[in-house]
Amino acid sequence: MRPRRRETPKTGANESASRSVRYRNLVNPFEPTRIFSDDQIESIHATALGMLERQGMRVLSPRGRAALAAAGAKVDDSTQMVYVEPGMVAEALKTVPAEVELVARNPARSCRVGGRHVVFAPVAGPPSVSDLTGGKRTGSLEEYRNFVRLSQAYDVIHVNGQMVEPQDAPLPERHLQTSLAQLSLSDKAPYFYCRGTAQLADCFEMARIAHGIDEATFRSKPVCYTICNTNSPLQLDIPMTEGILEFAANGQLVIVTPFTLAGAMAPITIAGALTLAHAEALLGITLTQVVRPGTPVMYGSFTSNVDMKSGSPAFGTPEYTKAAFGAGQLARRIGVPWRCSSATASNAPDAQSAYESQMSLWGALLGGCHFILHSAGWLEGGLTASYEKFILDIEMLQMFAEIFQPVTTSADDLAVEAVVEAGIGGHFFATAHTMQRYRDAFYTPLVSDWRNYGAWSDDGAKTATERAGAVARRTLESFQTPALDPAIEEALKDFVARRRSEGGAPPVS
Amino acid sequence: MRPRRRETPKTGANESASRSVRYRNLVNPFEPTRIFSDDQIESIHATALGMLERQGMRVLSPRGRAALAAAGAKVDDSTQMVYVEPGMVAEALKTVPAEVELVARNPARSCRVGGRHVVFAPVAGPPSVSDLTGGKRTGSLEEYRNFVRLSQAYDVIHVNGQMVEPQDAPLPERHLQTSLAQLSLSDKAPYFYCRGTAQLADCFEMARIAHGIDEATFRSKPVCYTICNTNSPLQLDIPMTEGILEFAANGQLVIVTPFTLAGAMAPITIAGALTLAHAEALLGITLTQVVRPGTPVMYGSFTSNVDMKSGSPAFGTPEYTKAAFGAGQLARRIGVPWRCSSATASNAPDAQSAYESQMSLWGALLGGCHFILHSAGWLEGGLTASYEKFILDIEMLQMFAEIFQPVTTSADDLAVEAVVEAGIGGHFFATAHTMQRYRDAFYTPLVSDWRNYGAWSDDGAKTATERAGAVARRTLESFQTPALDPAIEEALKDFVARRRSEGGAPPVS
Repeated sequence: MRPRRRETPKTGANESASRSVRYRNLVNPFEPTRIFSDDQIESIHATALGMLERQGMRVLSPRGRAALAAAGAKVDDSTQMVYVEPGMVAEALKTVPAEVELVARNPARSCRVGGRHVVFAPVAGPPSVSDLTGGKRTGSLEEYRNFVRLSQAYDVIHVNGQMVEPQDAPLPERHLQTSLAQLSLSDKAPYFYCRGTAQLADCFEMARIAHGIDEATFRSKPVCYTICNTNSPLQLDIPMTEGILEFAANGQLVIVTPFTLAGAMAPITIAGALTLAHAEALLGITLTQVVRPGTPVMYGSFTSNVDMKSGSPAFGTPEYTKAAFGAGQLARRIGVPWRCSSATASNAPDAQSAYESQMSLWGALLGGCHFILHSAGWLEGGLTASYEKFILDIEMLQMFAEIFQPVTTSADDLAVEAVVEAGIGGHFFATAHTMQRYRDAFYTPLVSDWRNYGAWSDDGAKTATERAGAVARRTLESFQTPALDPAIEEALKDFVARRRSEGGAPPVS
Repeated sequence: MRPRRRETPKTGANESASRSVRYRNLVNPFEPTRIFSDDQIESIHATALGMLERQGMRVLSPRGRAALAAAGAKVDDSTQMVYVEPGMVAEALKTVPAEVELVARNPARSCRVGGRHVVFAPVAGPPSVSDLTGGKRTGSLEEYRNFVRLSQAYDVIHVNGQMVEPQDAPLPERHLQTSLAQLSLSDKAPYFYCRGTAQLADCFEMARIAHGIDEATFRSKPVCYTICNTNSPLQLDIPMTEGILEFAANGQLVIVTPFTLAGAMAPITIAGALTLAHAEALLGITLTQVVRPGTPVMYGSFTSNVDMKSGSPAFGTPEYTKAAFGAGQLARRIGVPWRCSSATASNAPDAQSAYESQMSLWGALLGGCHFILHSAGWLEGGLTASYEKFILDIEMLQMFAEIFQPVTTSADDLAVEAVVEAGIGGHFFATAHTMQRYRDAFYTPLVSDWRNYGAWSDDGAKTATERAGAVARRTLESFQTPALDPAIEEALKDFVARRRSEGGAPPVS
């Protein structure tokens, strides 16, 4: 059917809308979508347990192997192999918290992980950044700070991240600089990379300074998070294992994420890739609970497929969406909060980047995901943090936040009297029902342009990507650094200066 | 996490992939997503019934009023108002078929409407067309034919449509020209517009010629479909009412769709807009069954919101997605197959058009929709049919078609032996498991570019929209007209020539 365009209402409805964008504590009201039957899930779970028991997993860190051996795993130090029985996994799963509060230095920014709650985290890991005006370039500390500012500026982003690799910061002090940026330019919970115990000691100390808490208090509540990736198939490297050990020992939030690309480092079938990922995640989760029962931990999933023509990883594919639905079921099967991602293989922040990210997001959110990493800014398969994509993603996330809001059905909502007032064939622009509500009835978009073709053309016929770039620039120009006790800020800076003068801490590989 | 790029596999996997794109009979395996409780649905349903009983609906066609009066409705011809009691609606709903086959002239193109089946229909109604090279322009018969060819070329489009208004065809013969294009350039079921009884008589005769069937056979099975929009609030105009009467009398598929824009011709609340739409749809559906019990009919929903700043309709908004979930529940409540739409307000086939269409599509498909109108080509709030958007949409629809395919979990799918073969820390490119499957393991995209940044840049750094334009041109250049008995083609052309010489049939308004 053809929609009818209407004139601007004469009711004052052309005043600026003012719907709240305080999307701080999101609750997903939808029943998770299932792709597997219960029997299929049992089959995958049992097969993964069998894999851990019989094929085992290589754990490169001697400390990691020792911790698992002490809890009953069969360990062969000569091959670095660890074999875990199903009973040991089941025991560990018993102590995983179903829900946990990730505490930010500003209590209003704390967020809940698990249950029906949804946390959006920005992109992590890209070596490069890009925008339409400056093109693609190597990541720098100033670009890193910009993305911290963007992540801080939008309430729909709930935690900090590692949005781009600041390659102008020397490796031994990069963790100091990025932690300082996260803790001073933002009041949301930070993401610390696992690049060795020494770096983590610095990061944890900075978190304690930012919160003004002692070690015991720090250990009692998670105030930061990390991602520990397995090296599929069936391997856990030294920095990731040490990350699990340190985060667990300190009661901080660990997200164990196998990165399983079907057809490359995982079986080419979705069920096979999920089975392998499940086995690896189970081992990582088990290790967290062995170190310290009750450690807040998430079941991370990142199963996609490669392009069999080029060998490149693909994201936001149909297989990716299906794997997300399946991973959500597996996470619920073992009762562990679930982390998934928004991702795209697109090289440009264009229509492909939007539909692939949407396919990822719907897979995650209808799949019942609790924590969506890479939910803003991811481009080029994760190799670039894009300013425009960041803002396009914020628009999508805010739309999801709105979809989560309940639809009320009081007599007043059903609006029988408004229909009478409008009259047969009439319109609702000026009804009392509309007048009471028009200012904030609907989501007000950040990027989407709903004007008619003429108005849009006269204004330069800009694409959504171009408009998103302008929004990013405006957001940075108007950025307000969140309040931070000057003494704390000083202490953070002193700490960074001291540790830099001491040479920092080189990353472990 | 940062994905690792892999080299092209050395296994021959860089040969062209060959996954089937025969997406002819799609089955949606997912449980529909619900936004309302059962009580809320009952409340909306009861309120809508009360609206029909007490406030009534204006039916402009005397024939329509007479048919409703004969079945027990209270009719006031002086005001053209019709009042229908809940019992009469309930009686009518009993005879609506839960599932029906829409028969195409090529049996392989017939499709099932209802149950778990999903039908994708192309955009309908735009007065204009556009592409990146030619810009926006008035629709013509040749452009109409191009869109029939595009709709025919992709299996994921299951029926024909009215993709653009061919404004170079005089109004009294436009229906002849468009029907000829649909029936000769395509072998999928056509969409006939309701612009008066005389035009429909021509269209139905052409359908009978195309199928080589007599009137009785024609009446026994639906071979074409139409959309009958109500004029919200609470009005049904003459051409739409006549359309319902003629389609029902001939046993053809009617889709009754109120077009309810919250804040304009419907209440500003989602629940209110849905309640009004539900009342109007119930009246239209009741009329189909009054005329002929068992008429194949669908519950159409098209509830969105206006931009309260400009008064323009907005599509693919959060409110749109929520309304879709709700409409699906209402359709299931009354046991009538459900039609929804894919839509966007974007003026360009850009990222906004992609994420808004995705928001629409997920609302429809997770909502359990049976028939998605406007699923390819819709741009600018339905005012333009875009060649690039058509192809971008085909990509999205094919991705959904893939998501619908079941994930199997046989022992072979779980791939324990492949994991053993790959070995700890190994890769799966060359495993027997991969080699057996790589050619068609994954969806092969039409538009998405998964190459690395360098390869993509060297190839012109084209956006998805630019690539989609090239795909549209290639598709048209390589178009193969489907087989049609020369005698039938001749008869269709003769009929059109004769009716044109007789002056055709002017549209009724």
